[in-house]
Amino acid sequence: MSESTGGSASTAAPEPQAPIGIALATDDELVKAVDFEKSGDGLVPAIVQDAADGTVLTVAYMDAEALRRTLDSGRSWFYSRSRQEYWQKGETSGDRQYVREVRMDCDGDALVIVVDQHGKGACHTGNRTCFYRTVGHGPGVPRPQ
Amino acid sequence: MSESTGGSASTAAPEPQAPIGIALATDDELVKAVDFEKSGDGLVPAIVQDAADGTVLTVAYMDAEALRRTLDSGRSWFYSRSRQEYWQKGETSGDRQYVREVRMDCDGDALVIVVDQHGKGACHTGNRTCFYRTVGHGPGVPRPQ
Repeated sequence: MSESTGGSASTAAPEPQAPIGIALATDDELVKAVDFEKSGDGLVPAIVQDAADGTVLTVAYMDAEALRRTLDSGRSWFYSRSRQEYWQKGETSGDRQYVREVRMDCDGDALVIVVDQHGKGACHTGNRTCFYRTVGHGPGVPRPQ
Repeated sequence: MSESTGGSASTAAPEPQAPIGIALATDDELVKAVDFEKSGDGLVPAIVQDAADGTVLTVAYMDAEALRRTLDSGRSWFYSRSRQEYWQKGETSGDRQYVREVRMDCDGDALVIVVDQHGKGACHTGNRTCFYRTVGHGPGVPRPQ
């Protein structure tokens, strides 16, 4: 989930015509109900899901400020635990996430962010999803109809 | 995500004919590669996704033992941060999760668990998904074709 900060000078042209995000209509009571304190570090996991087909693209973390920036900008903002800084997905890579929906779970300590994923995908490895490796698989037990 | 432990005696009959789970075929190198230590508490978030339609059902936490039980039993096991104990989804409610696939992300600190969700659903509130509340919504910016 890491992204370089791109601090050095570059002769590459900026990404042309990247559309700005569209602010979300919010339920302010629910925004206030997100329980950032439960984890002890002020963060909740944010599961990013592709609006196109439901693929889980990545998991990152948000504090209250990252959620606010996401809702206001219509693009995903996260807080990096390792770098201890805010980052906006795609700002370096061009692989931007435009947000369609933010959902919260029953006890308010996790979020689902439904996005239009632009560019190559969500993963810094170049894969569309960060979850490109299968640890185990089986037939399951189909739900009775 | 809480479940009662059901410790008191009950006259209710046990759920009939619940199929046992089917152990997963695993990639043992990837199992070993899951980074349980990164978070500092030995846990990784496990995003549970419905095999039927990709709905994100819930987020819970696994340590190495919960992952091992999940892979061996073919049913989802988690570790409760608040109760500090293992729990198997549906053991009390009957709303069992039979696992089809376990995926890990690029840096090994998050899992996706694809399941056949039996019973009413994944949430202790009676909702199918724990993510039944919308904090914000908007049109997004569709990916260029």
